[in-house]
Amino acid sequence: MTEDDPSFVKILDLEQLDQHVFRGQSKPTLPTRVFGGEVAAQALVAAGRTVPSDRLVHSLHAYFLRPGNASKPLIYQVDAIRDGNSFTTRRVVVIQNGEAVFNLDASFHRPEATGFAHQVAQLSAPSPEESISGEEMIAGADDSTRRWFGELESRFPLELRFPAELPRLASLRGERRPPRQAVWLRSRLPLPDDPLIHACAATFASDLFLLSSSMPPHISVFGDPHVQFASLDHAVWFHAPFRADDWLFYDQKGSWASGGRALCRGTFFDRSGTHIASVMQEGLLRRITGVPHPRDPA
Amino acid sequence: MTEDDPSFVKILDLEQLDQHVFRGQSKPTLPTRVFGGEVAAQALVAAGRTVPSDRLVHSLHAYFLRPGNASKPLIYQVDAIRDGNSFTTRRVVVIQNGEAVFNLDASFHRPEATGFAHQVAQLSAPSPEESISGEEMIAGADDSTRRWFGELESRFPLELRFPAELPRLASLRGERRPPRQAVWLRSRLPLPDDPLIHACAATFASDLFLLSSSMPPHISVFGDPHVQFASLDHAVWFHAPFRADDWLFYDQKGSWASGGRALCRGTFFDRSGTHIASVMQEGLLRRITGVPHPRDPA
Repeated sequence: MTEDDPSFVKILDLEQLDQHVFRGQSKPTLPTRVFGGEVAAQALVAAGRTVPSDRLVHSLHAYFLRPGNASKPLIYQVDAIRDGNSFTTRRVVVIQNGEAVFNLDASFHRPEATGFAHQVAQLSAPSPEESISGEEMIAGADDSTRRWFGELESRFPLELRFPAELPRLASLRGERRPPRQAVWLRSRLPLPDDPLIHACAATFASDLFLLSSSMPPHISVFGDPHVQFASLDHAVWFHAPFRADDWLFYDQKGSWASGGRALCRGTFFDRSGTHIASVMQEGLLRRITGVPHPRDPA
Repeated sequence: MTEDDPSFVKILDLEQLDQHVFRGQSKPTLPTRVFGGEVAAQALVAAGRTVPSDRLVHSLHAYFLRPGNASKPLIYQVDAIRDGNSFTTRRVVVIQNGEAVFNLDASFHRPEATGFAHQVAQLSAPSPEESISGEEMIAGADDSTRRWFGELESRFPLELRFPAELPRLASLRGERRPPRQAVWLRSRLPLPDDPLIHACAATFASDLFLLSSSMPPHISVFGDPHVQFASLDHAVWFHAPFRADDWLFYDQKGSWASGGRALCRGTFFDRSGTHIASVMQEGLLRRITGVPHPRDPA
């Protein structure tokens, strides 16, 4: 590991300025603007650092408000809106240049004995060992796709395996696919045992590829400079303990799109098939027609 | 219509105390505490009243923090966190007795020409005319269930039809069912044309029955005084214009439960089969073991 290796421990190491105020710096995982999953993970760690460590995050809801500038620090202001007997709730506003760029609400739960349990979603996929690497998957792709993937693999603290070709590649060949895709992922480096770190790493990962699961039915979306896409909101529910430095299967479905927006659902499983988290994200998905970017300051 | 008839117009008629501060009074739809859907609908109308009327709500995310007292007013404080070119975002905190009982974030979008469109979920159900009324459905049920349903029908501003018996009734007979149920619903009274009113009415309705869709696999949950359930969070995405005074089909699935919590998904269709909204809600679902209610003040 070198100083420049991307790592969750570094991404999540915020400076505490006061009891409920933190400062974070993008590492950065994207060349200029802040990757949405990174600010979400940092906001969650800020919230979690103000909550007793025996309470585990079970949900978060967030809005992406403006693009974060990766070359400047982000200030995380935590509002301790509720400290209850079983549940603790936090609201976080992320400030840069005097403006809110992101807000997140999260809830933490003191673990309880299970009263009722069921799981509907089932893992059905080749194992990570039987899946293909990103390098193998994009071997036959065009230069731009190979560059995109190389950037992603070098900057993101995640190791990736694909149970099947991403439909993005079919789309670049002009083929339509159903709005569905999946990836195996894990932290490239081992993580400490703190469950909050694992939840934050999964939150980071939950923003990866998700919105693009809405695009495969619509050919010539990927790589089209006239198509604009950006995450608008994000929600994660955590169902069971897991390690983000062991393989997680992330199933993604684009369930609806219209009017410039698309809604996507994500399901995380661990290797044993336990449904460990659920994700929802709406994103902007529009052909550019002179309308400004929603994350540009008005 | 009498003075006492429950109506969305009355529920949503908040008093504006200042530019971003509103006061609401529960009507009340539940005997003592405030029905979650009611406070969510009032919080959404408060947010919407601070946004230009040509921007339509497309999503909301909320947490239930403490039980609202139906005999006292609720104060809605709106934070205008972002006014963008295409999107406007609002945060609302609902205060009663000096404490936050609910918080809601919502985003509004200037309608855009559709660039890409697809819909995965499909409506497959008998029409409202072919469905059974609540009265027919509960004809053979026990007194407590009949009383519960009578209260609900008299207090709620909604007309209901059921494509099939609610699994709740099978559960009361000791039968397990898959975690899935559905209802047709519409405002009992005609509504004005303002799309915000229809979105608020659907938000109200979206809290109805949803959490109970997680219970049918677990017999003796319904009517068991030792089982505690309450909404924890709530999210709605609005996909297309609709009228809440025309029939809407609300499909509900309990996708996961464990550790005292359950996650449920809802899908709203209009009569023509257009997917008009998506809902997610996590709720508390526990056997009571002396642990205080999460909405009780700590």
